[in-house]
Amino acid sequence: MGVHNVMEDVVREALNQNRASLHLTCDCHRCIDDIMAIALNQLPPQYIANEMHSPYVRASHQADRQGATNILSTVAKAAHIVSESPRCQTTKRGWDITSFK
Amino acid sequence: MGVHNVMEDVVREALNQNRASLHLTCDCHRCIDDIMAIALNQLPPQYIANEMHSPYVRASHQADRQGATNILSTVAKAAHIVSESPRCQTTKRGWDITSFK
Repeated sequence: MGVHNVMEDVVREALNQNRASLHLTCDCHRCIDDIMAIALNQLPPQYIANEMHSPYVRASHQADRQGATNILSTVAKAAHIVSESPRCQTTKRGWDITSFK
Repeated sequence: MGVHNVMEDVVREALNQNRASLHLTCDCHRCIDDIMAIALNQLPPQYIANEMHSPYVRASHQADRQGATNILSTVAKAAHIVSESPRCQTTKRGWDITSFK
């Protein structure tokens, strides 16, 4: 079974639904994962032990408009950080951390 | 690829290494998952976008003794909550939430 952080689904949904307005300079998997990780580290986790309860937790997020605004604002900040310096571009330019080994 | 919360590994390790001293009344998968979920909701997430970096983050946790004490204390409190009222026992007694449907 394992545990699952419902906030991952909420952030992914916020990112997908607002992708156009976030003005991402890159939407490759690496940049999307970077945005997800930065945003999730700023938001309170919502772990559940039973996946069957996931829809209830997500529904409570949809009903909480103040919370939704906070999540979207956090995602927008994370998107701005990644858009300013995308790591995939850095890698292409030879600036990846592994090149300093 | 996806994102991963390294704190999940850190909490699981703390739980496994201290299982004897936590005096769990039940160590079935459901109870362990409940302890994990309760503890992870109290601890700051540490999401990474690249699994290759996981050992570095975990090593930094091992070096941080104050942080390790805080994590173990959080796990112990979660274990106490679950040991006081294990949901697997509740289910066996017919008190599961699904029985009220």
